[in-house]
Amino acid sequence: MGILERDIDDLPRNPANYTALTPLAFLDRAALVYPTRISLIHGSVSFNWAQTYRRCRRLASALAKRRVTFGSTVAVIAPNIPAMFEAHFGVPMSGAVLNTVNIRLNAQTIAFLLGHSHSEIIMVDQEFYTLAEEALTIVADKNKDKFKPPTLVVIADANCDRKSLDHALQRGAIEYETFLGSGDPDFAWKPPEDEWHSIALGYTSGTTSSPKGVVLHHRGAYLMALSNAIVWGIGEGAVYLWTLPMFHCNGWCFPWTLAAICVTSVCLRQVTAKAVYSAIANLGITHFCAAPVVLNTIVHASKEESVLPLPRVVKVMTAGAAPPPSVLSAMSQRGFRVTHTYGLSETYGPSTICAWKPEWDSLPPEAQARMNSRQGVRYVGLEGLDVINTETMKPVPADGTTVGEIVFRGNVVMKGYLKNPKANEAAFAGGWYHSGDLAVKHPDHYIEIKDRSKDIIISGGENISSVEVENILYQHEAILEVSVVSRPDEQWGESPCAFVTLKPGVEASDQRKLAKDIMKFGRSKMPAYWVPKSVVFGPLPKTATGKIQKHVLRAKAKEMGPVKKSRL
Amino acid sequence: MGILERDIDDLPRNPANYTALTPLAFLDRAALVYPTRISLIHGSVSFNWAQTYRRCRRLASALAKRRVTFGSTVAVIAPNIPAMFEAHFGVPMSGAVLNTVNIRLNAQTIAFLLGHSHSEIIMVDQEFYTLAEEALTIVADKNKDKFKPPTLVVIADANCDRKSLDHALQRGAIEYETFLGSGDPDFAWKPPEDEWHSIALGYTSGTTSSPKGVVLHHRGAYLMALSNAIVWGIGEGAVYLWTLPMFHCNGWCFPWTLAAICVTSVCLRQVTAKAVYSAIANLGITHFCAAPVVLNTIVHASKEESVLPLPRVVKVMTAGAAPPPSVLSAMSQRGFRVTHTYGLSETYGPSTICAWKPEWDSLPPEAQARMNSRQGVRYVGLEGLDVINTETMKPVPADGTTVGEIVFRGNVVMKGYLKNPKANEAAFAGGWYHSGDLAVKHPDHYIEIKDRSKDIIISGGENISSVEVENILYQHEAILEVSVVSRPDEQWGESPCAFVTLKPGVEASDQRKLAKDIMKFGRSKMPAYWVPKSVVFGPLPKTATGKIQKHVLRAKAKEMGPVKKSRL
Repeated sequence: MGILERDIDDLPRNPANYTALTPLAFLDRAALVYPTRISLIHGSVSFNWAQTYRRCRRLASALAKRRVTFGSTVAVIAPNIPAMFEAHFGVPMSGAVLNTVNIRLNAQTIAFLLGHSHSEIIMVDQEFYTLAEEALTIVADKNKDKFKPPTLVVIADANCDRKSLDHALQRGAIEYETFLGSGDPDFAWKPPEDEWHSIALGYTSGTTSSPKGVVLHHRGAYLMALSNAIVWGIGEGAVYLWTLPMFHCNGWCFPWTLAAICVTSVCLRQVTAKAVYSAIANLGITHFCAAPVVLNTIVHASKEESVLPLPRVVKVMTAGAAPPPSVLSAMSQRGFRVTHTYGLSETYGPSTICAWKPEWDSLPPEAQARMNSRQGVRYVGLEGLDVINTETMKPVPADGTTVGEIVFRGNVVMKGYLKNPKANEAAFAGGWYHSGDLAVKHPDHYIEIKDRSKDIIISGGENISSVEVENILYQHEAILEVSVVSRPDEQWGESPCAFVTLKPGVEASDQRKLAKDIMKFGRSKMPAYWVPKSVVFGPLPKTATGKIQKHVLRAKAKEMGPVKKSRL
Repeated sequence: MGILERDIDDLPRNPANYTALTPLAFLDRAALVYPTRISLIHGSVSFNWAQTYRRCRRLASALAKRRVTFGSTVAVIAPNIPAMFEAHFGVPMSGAVLNTVNIRLNAQTIAFLLGHSHSEIIMVDQEFYTLAEEALTIVADKNKDKFKPPTLVVIADANCDRKSLDHALQRGAIEYETFLGSGDPDFAWKPPEDEWHSIALGYTSGTTSSPKGVVLHHRGAYLMALSNAIVWGIGEGAVYLWTLPMFHCNGWCFPWTLAAICVTSVCLRQVTAKAVYSAIANLGITHFCAAPVVLNTIVHASKEESVLPLPRVVKVMTAGAAPPPSVLSAMSQRGFRVTHTYGLSETYGPSTICAWKPEWDSLPPEAQARMNSRQGVRYVGLEGLDVINTETMKPVPADGTTVGEIVFRGNVVMKGYLKNPKANEAAFAGGWYHSGDLAVKHPDHYIEIKDRSKDIIISGGENISSVEVENILYQHEAILEVSVVSRPDEQWGESPCAFVTLKPGVEASDQRKLAKDIMKFGRSKMPAYWVPKSVVFGPLPKTATGKIQKHVLRAKAKEMGPVKKSRL
């Protein structure tokens, strides 16, 4: 036995050789190395890294002065504005946990979140002030005398109507800049004593159940921040556009990534195709992250909204629902280089990547898009990824056909759900985090989602992947968006039902005829039993993060009653 | 007090959300994602990532079969060949600690290292087999009956003479490929239970004292590997050349970096200007790391050895002794983009970087080189860097003139020195790792080394930075290399003495005249008391890693006797 056997005891941690990992340290470095480089641009406002660091320390100090400390929660209800970015540093620098709230939720749901997270201070963009008030009224009603109203800090934005700000100030809210003014720009923040300490709390959008509070720690945020930069190759010279909401899973940890690589980012209060193209043309954007729904918007932008050809290759990271190959292909034709990733709030955002292979360069565009629409392989920061048979807990074979559940293991998996031991037990069963997503593993070990377990359609005992049916229907020239769910079926138990939004400009004067045309198209491309027996036109219900709410569509399909035998 | 106060207890680590950080996981990923991409090229031999992974697991398994396990040490004595790269994964995959041994050391010193590290297995390149034997004879003699001869594994290299291999085999050594053959290519290695476990042991080159064993852990190696990629911006599409020895501080952790970014690297048994240029021209090299002495060789290569203009920009990371601005400037003129970094074995290799600023682009080349010859700012993976007054332990002002000691703090600082509590106490005093290097902090917070504390020359009570004197003398047209040390001086106590190697082709028929010319040059460029009073010509003594051994020169200068008063 060698001499180093007891080296852990012999050479223990000491203050010189051990520091808790925290992404907050990236900001300190950015301000030191590139103090005058622009950190953030928001309309006519911009800050450099030195200013951003001072503002974040002011925020931390102002919070600390209001007795916010380790164990506190600070909620933020805001779109992609500088204060939201600053909260990602200032809040945890005070020791508190950042609870970003989806601005598209209703007052009822926000009330649930604020009550559940016990947020002591709420930072709210002026546009959403009345929403926050409404939510707090609901919390107060529910808790009666136990309710201690939180401090409200309202964030003014020159792009908004003055009225809502005045209203907030009249109601006693503190204006954000005033609040910052009460803080010390040289506040001596400290890294957490333990890197396992929580940095952020985010609630799942609840497509299937009531929101669960996903708790993330400093260690994971640090590792994911670096991992983002490495797998995407984003670094020196990049200019990042904020289309992905920071309230959504902390913008996939990109506030911390951008500080680590000292890159300028551009805020976007509202995401439209025009705003995206305009930022690319005028502000030198090289990178952005976006949900597939945003890609769809970009692809279908009118000539007037677009700036094509692009002045440079723009790199896009997308995740969320699997983007249909047709959208990937269209993005590529327009000069965007799309990196397809996949993950969940529970995995700090994307933690798998469809790593591009040089040998795909020579494939025809459709084949490229098909390769690239897969969810891929683990991030460099994730230690384990597999597709398992949920009964045996064994990996499925890498045959491209056997379906199993995607499971994750490693340092970029959440601490757990807040105050939800039952959900944690299920989520972490057998030493894996269970995603609930069903996938196959291809011979090249890239995984591909077939469906959420709840979204599989079982027709006559055969599984139908709603995603595969959707991917095919997306090739139909009239379809902008499509979602396929199960509808009760007299003969087959269930059968596919397609909900369709048409492309702008497509006339659907005869919906019946168009539905028939879509089904005919389907029959030419997929097995007969996959072809939707019903096609419904209209806008698709979406979660606040832009995910199509299949459970709503499923309920709608159920309401329609079972498909009659006679219709076959 | 918020609800999250006890979240560490409420949401503890579990197998799904916590894994010990280890750079070994990068290889597993590289083999999964890019199995057919070339990992290593060595002459006519090449491997892909799938092969490299299988070979490393074979190595781990073969070691495990010989009872190598956690706590064992495995030594490797080899130049930059594939087995050396494989050892960086295979050895720690067995649980053991990798002890890379400098091939330029003599048998006496190697005997000290092998005895001190208790290496149970020694992997040795065939060229260095007799050296290893000699060293082991010394160890055996010293330890008599207590000595248990380690297993010797000899690495054959087609580029070497068959004789030395035959000799080794006759003496009972196991050939490396045979050894690998005894291992299981699917060996189920495990990450360490604790990321604080040791991964590597390297001995300082001992310019000032007997070698100290620097112990590094999995956590630090993981973080440094990612940090290298981020600060240098090396990633997809790069091809890396191994000029920096892997035995030197684990090649600055680059074996692990290259696996993390899945990049091809090219081995180089012997570093010559011709070999470097040829690899650039023929193998698509885009990046390499090198000590300043290698840059000097490249800059002074003959026309026949060079391939200029370069077929592409080649990025070079350099560290070690501070490269003279004149060398940096010459490299830049040839199309190399040099990133200047600084660190020590104790900080996993470079952990500061002279991060380039866009505003330097418009400076004249000399000014650029001067900016870039500074040691810079902390790596993204290092949490603390400062220059302190060693008496007060307070940071020196950022004024560019006050000299203090460079100190480090963070996760890429060594565990400590092996079996050397006294050295550890001194090294980690006051919560910092003390480098022993003297520097100033400029107003932009970039640090600049003025000297090793031992290398400062004190003349008439005034400090003279030998590095500054050297940097100026490097501008003299005849000088290839120069090292300035203190020589006893009757009047001033000490005065500078320059040891000089001349450029190839420079005739020094009249050394006295040339020495006078150099002194005259010095007087035109620096304060009179900085100008060397003696100039000595000849080759410079170097450590095995190419650092000039100033203590040898100081001894030489002392032998020369004090500078007489009359000579003034």
